[in-house]
Order: sequence, then structure tokens, then C-alpha cells
Amino acid sequence: MRFFYLLSNPLGVRGLFIFLLTMANNDDQFKKVVSHAREYGYIFASSEIYDGLSAVYDYAQNGVELKKNIREYWWRSMVHMHQNIVGLDSAILMHPTTWKASGHVDAFSDPLIDNKDSKKRYRADVLIEDYAEKLNQKAQKEIEKAKKRFGDKFDEEEFVSTNPRVIRYLEEQRTVLERMANSLEKEDLADVKALIEELGIADPDTGSKNWTEVRQFNLMFGTKLGASAEHAMDLYLRPETAQGIFVNFLNVQKSGRMKIPFGIAQTGKAFRNEIVARQFIFRMREFEQMEMQFFVRPGEELKWYEYWKEMRLKWHLSLGMGEENYRFHDHDKLAHYANAAADIEFNFPFGFKELEGIHSRTDFDLKAHEKFSGKKLQFFDPELNESYVPYVVETSIGLDRMFLAVLSNSLQDETLEDGSTRTVLKIPAILAPVKAAVLPLIKRDGLPEVAQQIIEDLQWDHNVIYDEKDAVGRRYRRQDAAGTPFCITVDHQTLEDGTVTIRHRDTMEQERISKDEVSNKIKEAISYKKWLQ
Amino acid sequence: MRFFYLLSNPLGVRGLFIFLLTMANNDDQFKKVVSHAREYGYIFASSEIYDGLSAVYDYAQNGVELKKNIREYWWRSMVHMHQNIVGLDSAILMHPTTWKASGHVDAFSDPLIDNKDSKKRYRADVLIEDYAEKLNQKAQKEIEKAKKRFGDKFDEEEFVSTNPRVIRYLEEQRTVLERMANSLEKEDLADVKALIEELGIADPDTGSKNWTEVRQFNLMFGTKLGASAEHAMDLYLRPETAQGIFVNFLNVQKSGRMKIPFGIAQTGKAFRNEIVARQFIFRMREFEQMEMQFFVRPGEELKWYEYWKEMRLKWHLSLGMGEENYRFHDHDKLAHYANAAADIEFNFPFGFKELEGIHSRTDFDLKAHEKFSGKKLQFFDPELNESYVPYVVETSIGLDRMFLAVLSNSLQDETLEDGSTRTVLKIPAILAPVKAAVLPLIKRDGLPEVAQQIIEDLQWDHNVIYDEKDAVGRRYRRQDAAGTPFCITVDHQTLEDGTVTIRHRDTMEQERISKDEVSNKIKEAISYKKWLQ
Repeated sequence: MRFFYLLSNPLGVRGLFIFLLTMANNDDQFKKVVSHAREYGYIFASSEIYDGLSAVYDYAQNGVELKKNIREYWWRSMVHMHQNIVGLDSAILMHPTTWKASGHVDAFSDPLIDNKDSKKRYRADVLIEDYAEKLNQKAQKEIEKAKKRFGDKFDEEEFVSTNPRVIRYLEEQRTVLERMANSLEKEDLADVKALIEELGIADPDTGSKNWTEVRQFNLMFGTKLGASAEHAMDLYLRPETAQGIFVNFLNVQKSGRMKIPFGIAQTGKAFRNEIVARQFIFRMREFEQMEMQFFVRPGEELKWYEYWKEMRLKWHLSLGMGEENYRFHDHDKLAHYANAAADIEFNFPFGFKELEGIHSRTDFDLKAHEKFSGKKLQFFDPELNESYVPYVVETSIGLDRMFLAVLSNSLQDETLEDGSTRTVLKIPAILAPVKAAVLPLIKRDGLPEVAQQIIEDLQWDHNVIYDEKDAVGRRYRRQDAAGTPFCITVDHQTLEDGTVTIRHRDTMEQERISKDEVSNKIKEAISYKKWLQ
Repeated sequence: MRFFYLLSNPLGVRGLFIFLLTMANNDDQFKKVVSHAREYGYIFASSEIYDGLSAVYDYAQNGVELKKNIREYWWRSMVHMHQNIVGLDSAILMHPTTWKASGHVDAFSDPLIDNKDSKKRYRADVLIEDYAEKLNQKAQKEIEKAKKRFGDKFDEEEFVSTNPRVIRYLEEQRTVLERMANSLEKEDLADVKALIEELGIADPDTGSKNWTEVRQFNLMFGTKLGASAEHAMDLYLRPETAQGIFVNFLNVQKSGRMKIPFGIAQTGKAFRNEIVARQFIFRMREFEQMEMQFFVRPGEELKWYEYWKEMRLKWHLSLGMGEENYRFHDHDKLAHYANAAADIEFNFPFGFKELEGIHSRTDFDLKAHEKFSGKKLQFFDPELNESYVPYVVETSIGLDRMFLAVLSNSLQDETLEDGSTRTVLKIPAILAPVKAAVLPLIKRDGLPEVAQQIIEDLQWDHNVIYDEKDAVGRRYRRQDAAGTPFCITVDHQTLEDGTVTIRHRDTMEQERISKDEVSNKIKEAISYKKWLQ
């Protein structure tokens, strides 16, 4: 449990002041994102007609395209743009010994506690985090009050660092979270329970404080292969894609004639039986990872770790979603398999949270698989004239989190010059689900037919849609809200000189260009060279 | 069980003569495909270092690219090229009532039988099919003998239809398979057992004929959501992607403002706990489907069924893998939810087998979900001014089967004019994993540097590789066998006039072109307009 906990809860006791200062009113923005995602065909609750399946979501008609485009942007920049990185697509079902070797069978678990009266089960760490969050909210309330009292003269940072009440709340919050993190790290579950009792934490549903001991619960989904209980083999749905890369390391190296340093990249589903899954698609039970494992000479791993930290941040910044929305969080406490680890955090509507992790995993995984499989997993280095188990630097990003980052960052309410407002989804053009909408100005005089011809020309290369319903202004607004970067309008002048207007979503500017130039115009706007260079 | 059996075993008693005539020596070709796939980085056994996981495979560095390209070729031709089809990406985990409604909980099963002495478990239908196959082989042997005896004068078709022994073997084979299909259809498992006993079928491992009754075993993988046995919810890994489309039908229709007829397309993993999984990636426990459900007015479904049969065959033919390698198989016996069904069969190394299915599924699924969810799943048709549950026409193709079709069709041993041979993987260029290899003729005089510059230019748009090892002729052969359609060679003339040679994999012809033209040359060769028009 210990090491996984540290990595999956990197914020811990850190950065609470900053977090606090950015939280105000962001709940509203988050709700807006969730409802916009549903209304505009990005995300639906899974099995909604059966009242949903908790913490599982479906990607709708626009969502699937955005997800594909993010995946492709990652794949091409990581695999096609690096001559020493190749891809892999390993299966979700793996031999169960894989998860013994990786440590997941023994240690990939959450601390759970039951209430004896209500028979309800909770994550012990979440109960404590919720308690700490309440202290946070009390401090927040004090700040709001002071803000109202002092108006323009209010200096928030000074107030937070001098007001005794605020200091007390935040200090207590820090103490509570620190003690919990330490107890979990030492696997001292008795102390986690003691903390719950000392704080007087009650069952949120019933108020009862009659708790069982805290126990560890494994997060892997299990299933059985084979026809009957007696013949069945216990399998797991993979909780991470990385192990599929490690067990294939030597096959890829040999058949691809790879030389160290080289990387293997993979995207795919992973599953975690989270007890408390929250925050929309941020933490789901079924999710998709985009991981790259980079195999290096022992001793050179920290150089490559720094290299990949820089490269991955550069990749994020290439999308133009605001440098201020990213930050590194270097881990102080490291998992036992790592000798360096950092997160790239993104400014989600609910604060800065982990979007991607870069980890120097040493030779832990390959050595473990050597031990459990009895097979050598070594690379013969012709320059050094020796064989060794390579060290590994990993970059691991959640595709669904990236999706949420793009969606929440893009959704904006704008007040225009004439005082009217518009909702616009400023998704980077290269990621936008639909690249262009083709609109006949009116539904007669042959304009729809010309628009259809343009569609037929564009759809060889682009995902485009046709829209003839409602006044053109309303159609522009609809495409703005759906995230379509270009609107191509066919009007009477088109019939005369073959030109159309192309309207840019973000600036609302319109240009007149030949209809034969439209395809190239879009191609330029979404070329990899333009975005990644 | 009944209806699923029919669809998943479409060959049944049909076409055995034809099958027989095409089987000779194809086993060798199949073995070649399997070992080539491993050697050239297309497919590895899953968890190979742990001695594999039966009927699960991993896609290696070239395999993942081929798989991605097939998926993309399907997606763009189905979704982007049809204004009335949109995509979806629903989760693997769904609310369990979905599978009650679809019939999978009650009826998606295989007939299993245990041997009481050996305690081994078998699929009853497979035991019978194996028995029938032996009859087939006996007939085959007679044909081979006659072929040797008569030499050039041998008329195979005439012999098969007149020789009493061959006729008897094939008649018996037909009778056995027919009786089994009928018993399974009527769910008369006692008769399936009776058949096994009448034929004297023994445990293949031990020879024992001491059998239990035949029982049905559900093919869905089960798992549990939640922290403990008492709180857990029983879930299934989806056995097909189609139901994810049906439960989202109304959400997509409304948020996408779709009008009937319209389609929803999806690609994704599905899982079946097959007891006997054979034939490499043809029948796996974890596999990927590409499905499109087309929603139409009741009464118009057969028109659309014919339309999609034609369209889907056209799609397959667009890849140029030989018209003679495809055929329709119209189902005589229909699943209870269908009023028409056909397969597109492909000529695999082990004979013509189902590659894609086109099914007119009526309103069975939507009506079932209405019933089990209590929600209306109707479309208001403004032209008819009435609401109805649409009828559905489905096109369903196995991505892994398509992969196997491409790979096995592409692998060829050629004898060249000079008498030498080469192994070449003639993958259609638009699907090829690596589009071009860039090769400096020799490793000095600045040629590698120029080659690297060309790589850097090309990799913005294409997956390309650099190769400088071994003589250039050997590198050409290596790229031929790996399936790379173009080799770009940098030589001394390149330094003088900026031209390179571009070598075509299939013809081995070489042209001299400017290095600045290479990217466009590749783009032309893999343009969707060229392939799909």
C-alpha cells in the first residue's frame, strides 16, 4: 500500500495556502463543465438509462473525437517524432504472476473502515481528508468575511498569514493530514483508526462513531478465466499499462533491433476498483493511460529523468492552454522503486492536481520480472561490451484527465463588445472534434447544394459537419459552444465568384477566401509542424 | 444460447466441398504467418515471459501501428465520410441489467461436457466438430491418393461428386453437423450428449468415453464492483460493443440532433471466456470490435440492410486484397432478434471464415432496453409526425480478424527474375505501419546526416524509420519483409543535386526524385481519396 499511496496522493499536506486562494467559486465552473459536456455530446454517464454506473463514463459523439485527437497528438509526438521510441498494444488481461512481481497483489490497496451501526463502508483516508477539508472551508469563510469588511484595501496574503483563526484552522488541517500520511506510510492502520476517533469523525450518513478496525482492500478488479471454479485461473484487469511494456521489453528490443536508450509507448485502458471515486472523469474506475517507458543505462537515469520532465512540459505548453496553469510537483517522499519522481500538475476547476507523472523507476520492475519469471531481461550494450538490466524513466499521463484539462480550460463565457455574451469552447484547433461546419446562408437558391459539395470535398481529410437549421448567427453560437474552430459560410456571392467566408471561433473574425482554399487553410491550422515545433 | 450459436458459427454444415478444395497445404502458410508476425514485431504471445496467457495476444511495435491504421481507415470511412453517422466510445463496464435485457445473461453460453475419468472439460460442440473434421480429412486423403494416381488427367470436382467413399465421408460429416446444429438450436442438450455417445467420441487426452451431461456455460467474464462481498455488485466485461450504442441511442440522437436514418459507430474491446480458443488472433478471449448501428424507420430495414451489405463489401475491396478472397454468406437460420443476416467471409489460410457480419436486428434491442429500464427509447419522426422505436441494421467487424486477413494476405514468397527469392509483406500502403525507411547508401561522406534531415522533415506527417546497418540490398529485403512500402535512399548524387531514389516495395522499381518531393509522394500514395473513391 505504502508506496502506491504516496504516488496517487501527491498533494498531501503541501500547497494548501495556494490551493485555498484559487478555490473560490470554481465549484460553479466545474458544474458548468459537467453539464456542458453532456449537453454538447462530449460525455454521458455510463448506462444512464439504468441510472448509471458509479465512476464510469461514456464518451459521446464529440467526446470520442476529442479523445482520439488527444491520443493521436500524444502518439505522434512520442512515437513518430522520436526515432528511438516505438509503440506497443498489450492486452488488458495478463498472466497473474505479472501482478505478483509488480507488487500489486500484495500492496495495491486502500485503507477501508466500516461503521458497525450503519454497516456502511468508507475509505479511512477520505474520511480524514474530508475532515481536513472542513477546516479549510472554515478558513475560507473567515477570508470571505474579511474581504467584505475591508473591500479594496484587503490584502489576502497578509490576512492569511496573520489572522490567528485562519492560521489555527490551516495549522490543524496540516497536522491532521501529516499524521495520516505518516501512519499510512508506516502501514500503521491502528493509528489511522486512532486518528479518526481522536478527531471524533462520524459516519457522514448516520452520525454514528462506532467504527471497526481499518483494513487494506486491494484495488484490482478480479475475474476468472476458464469454465468452472475448479479449473479457473484468477486474473486481474490491469491496474496500469506499464507492466505490459516491461514483460515485452526484450521481445521489442530484439525484434525492433533497438539500442539503449530507447522507449516503448502504449495507450490503453486500466481499471481500479476505487471505493470513493469523485470529480467526474478525473478519477474513474475504468480509465485510459498513455505511458512511455524509456530504457537507459544504469547511472544515466537522472539525466534522462530531467530530459523527460522538460520534454513533457513542453508538450503540454505546445497546446497553448496557459503556462500559468501548469506546475511541477517534485516528490519529497519516494516510492520504494523510484529514485526520483515529479508530477506535472494542471489547474483544474477544483485546483492544481496531477495530470502527468514522470518517474525514475530504476531497475525495480525488470528485476522483479526476472526473479518471478526466471528469464533474463538484460540488454547487451555493444559500446560498454557488457549486459545489464536497464534503468527505466517513465512518463505516464491520464488520457481522461487530459481530456478534462482541455475541456475545462476551453469552456469560457465571454462578454462581447455589444454587451451580449457567448459561451465558447476554445479547444485547441488540432484537438477539436469537428474542424469545420459548413453553413449555407439560407436554405434555398442552390446554396445548400454548394455547401454539400464543399462537405464532400473536405471530408476526405477532415471531420466536418453540415448545418442549415436556424439563422446563421445562431448557428455560429452553436458551433462556438460545441468547440468547432471554423465556420464556412456559403452565400450568394459564392455562386458568383466561388468564394466563401471562413469564420474563426476564437476571434469571431471572418475572411473571404476561395472555396478551393478551405481544405488547405484547415490543414495549415492543424499541422503538427505548426503545433509541435 | 440458441441464437448466439447460430451467429457465431455461421459456416455450419454449409460449403464443405468448397472448403475442402481450398484447404490443402494452407496449414504451412498459416504457420508462416504466425512466425513472421513474431519475428517482424507484429504480434507476441501475451505475458510470454510467464509462458503466455492462452488465447490472448499483444500487438508489438509494427502490429500496433497496423492495428491503429485499420481502425482509422474504418473510422474515417464510416464516421467522417458519412454525415449521418457519428462516433461513440462507451465503457467496457456497464450496468449489469444491460446484459439481462440483451439476453446475454440467460443465453450467451457454450455447451460443455466433462469426462468423469480424466476430470477434463470440453466444449461438446467442438468435440463433435473435431469428429466431423476427421471425416473431412479422410475424404481429403482419398482425393490426394487419386490425384497422385491420375496425375494431370485428374478432375477433382468430378471425383468428389462421384467417388462413393468420398461421398460417404462427406455425407456423414454433413449429417453429424446438421444434427448437432439442430439439437443446439432446440436447446436439446441431452441429444447433443446422445450424439457424442452414438459417435463413440472419446476424451482426446485419455480415450475415456465416460461423459457427464452437457451443460451450458456463460461466456461472459464476471467481476465485482465494490469493496466487499456483501456490498459488491456483479459486473461483466462486455461481450460485445453494440449494447453500449443501444443504451446511449437517445442521448446521442438528442445532443447530436440526429434525424433518422442515422448511425452510431464505435470501436473497442470486448471479452469472451472461450473454452476452446484457436487459430491465433482469429478467436481470442480479449478482442476488438468495430461496430456501427444504423437506426431506420420500421419497414425500411431490409433496404438499408442491402445498402450496408454492398457498402461494406466495397470498403473491403477498396484495399485491393483480391475480389476472389471475399464472399457473402447469407444466413438461412436467423437469430430470434434478426430478420436478415449475412457474413462477409474472407479467404484466411484456414479457409473462408467470417470477417464481418451485417445484421438486420429489428427493434429487438431497443425494445428490450425500454422494457428493462422503463424509459422510452423512441424517435419522433417529423415527416411521419409519429414516434416509434427505430429498427436497427448493424455492421460488425472484428479488428483482430481484419488484422489477420491483411497480414496473411500480404505475406508472399516471390521468386524473382534472377532466380533468387524474397519474402515480402504487401500490406496496402495506407495501412502499412512504417511508410518509409530512409537509408544512407553508405555510413560516411555525410550521407547519414542528409538521411537524418529527411527523416526530420518526414516525421511531422509520417511514421518513418532510419536504417544504416548492412548493405543496402539487405536493407531493402528487410523492409520488404517488414511491410514498408517505400525505401528512400540517399547517395552521393543526393549531395550534388538533392535527389534521392524512391524504391517501391511491390514492384521493386526505383525512381529518382527530389528529396523535397518525398513527403508529397508518400501523401499521394496514402490519400483517403485515392483509396476510398
